Amino acid sequence: MFSVSPESESSTSRPFLTWQRIIDWAQDHYRTRTFNKDDKIPVRPGLLYLVQRGSVRLVSAQISASTKTPSLVARLSANTDPDNLSPDESFLGFVGAGQPFEIVSQSPFTISSYAHVDKTTVLWMYWHDLDNWPHFRREVMEAFRYQNQRKLLWLGTMGQRRTIDRLLGFLTLLIEEYGEVCEQGYYLPWTLTHAQIGSAIGSTRVTVTRLMGKLRSKGLIITLDDNLICLPPSNPDS
Amino acid sequence: MFSVSPESESSTSRPFLTWQRIIDWAQDHYRTRTFNKDDKIPVRPGLLYLVQRGSVRLVSAQISASTKTPSLVARLSANTDPDNLSPDESFLGFVGAGQPFEIVSQSPFTISSYAHVDKTTVLWMYWHDLDNWPHFRREVMEAFRYQNQRKLLWLGTMGQRRTIDRLLGFLTLLIEEYGEVCEQGYYLPWTLTHAQIGSAIGSTRVTVTRLMGKLRSKGLIITLDDNLICLPPSNPDS
Repeated sequence: MFSVSPESESSTSRPFLTWQRIIDWAQDHYRTRTFNKDDKIPVRPGLLYLVQRGSVRLVSAQISASTKTPSLVARLSANTDPDNLSPDESFLGFVGAGQPFEIVSQSPFTISSYAHVDKTTVLWMYWHDLDNWPHFRREVMEAFRYQNQRKLLWLGTMGQRRTIDRLLGFLTLLIEEYGEVCEQGYYLPWTLTHAQIGSAIGSTRVTVTRLMGKLRSKGLIITLDDNLICLPPSNPDS
Repeated sequence: MFSVSPESESSTSRPFLTWQRIIDWAQDHYRTRTFNKDDKIPVRPGLLYLVQRGSVRLVSAQISASTKTPSLVARLSANTDPDNLSPDESFLGFVGAGQPFEIVSQSPFTISSYAHVDKTTVLWMYWHDLDNWPHFRREVMEAFRYQNQRKLLWLGTMGQRRTIDRLLGFLTLLIEEYGEVCEQGYYLPWTLTHAQIGSAIGSTRVTVTRLMGKLRSKGLIITLDDNLICLPPSNPDS
């Protein structure tokens, strides 16, 4: 589950050890559901979710000033931008097959989840359901520990001042974690719109499009036929 | 340990349940050390660190192109900026008393830790040392789970396009987690330089100074006598 090797071909290549038993349990208890691309996955705080197949996209939305708990941030962020369909949503990352996620709703932000690809299957349970599987519970906690480490690296990328550095760091981290092998190197097996990338790195769709062109012309990224993003193997001479 | 209540006055107010036994064990085994403000804390991947007292500052540094594993990102990021003493370091957050941390060193970034205040005491152990304290192990893992949740919110803040939104979101999250009560609201009990704040939100010292002035003039933040940052209680009417 902690492998960052991009060699894995199958979307279920990082299973929990007791995965099959969990899947059976979830089916028996009607705790599993399959979503189409960009369907919103209904989630509640306090529950644990597991991606069985496909990929989940986490986004953060600011609570608007009209809701019950208006925040300082929301007050300042009323301006929207026409470049982006969901100007207040930030892309926060993927949850791949075999990985857990959970939603918190405190503070000025709410986190939502969407199926990022068709046939994304998610199952869910209460934390106390894990009492039946102490070993599995430990794996879930190890997965959160790993996710925490990855987010530290991501925050490191986000602190860079130049947007092009944030962009390349962002793509590098995603492909390092989820990339699969192709002829030209490693590629992210899912598409991301330039608006989604912009929302992750604090930039706009237009700027992302321009900088992606720049990275392509420097040979630092390659765009595959189906619009997937590929990183060439890093060159030890440079 | 998961309380976000800013009521706690003492720096050791969020102890692990078995905290005293751990401290005794660390002293018996010479696994504890106290640092002065801004001392670098030597850390190695694979070990678990616990903050007994004070506060630890995590920063991310890009591996320069001259090291063994040059990265794509490092190649693009050779430019430095005179505004910032450590232009390649990003502030990644605090680890408060009672909280664990660990260091990963894969990918283009390395993470380092510094004592953020004088008399910061850190103890360390191997993960297998935790086999002696299964309950404590569980608390450590819960702490990482919590940290992961906080980082999701932080990433949500970082995705905002306007620097002033990132700045206010950043301060709000920090004070929500570490803030203490004062007459004017809640304040962050440690100083942060404008360069450090800039490194966290992908901006410059100069811009942070300007935007802090703007937030102050709008009454959204207050600067206390000793240069500590304070947020007034949020106003439910706005």
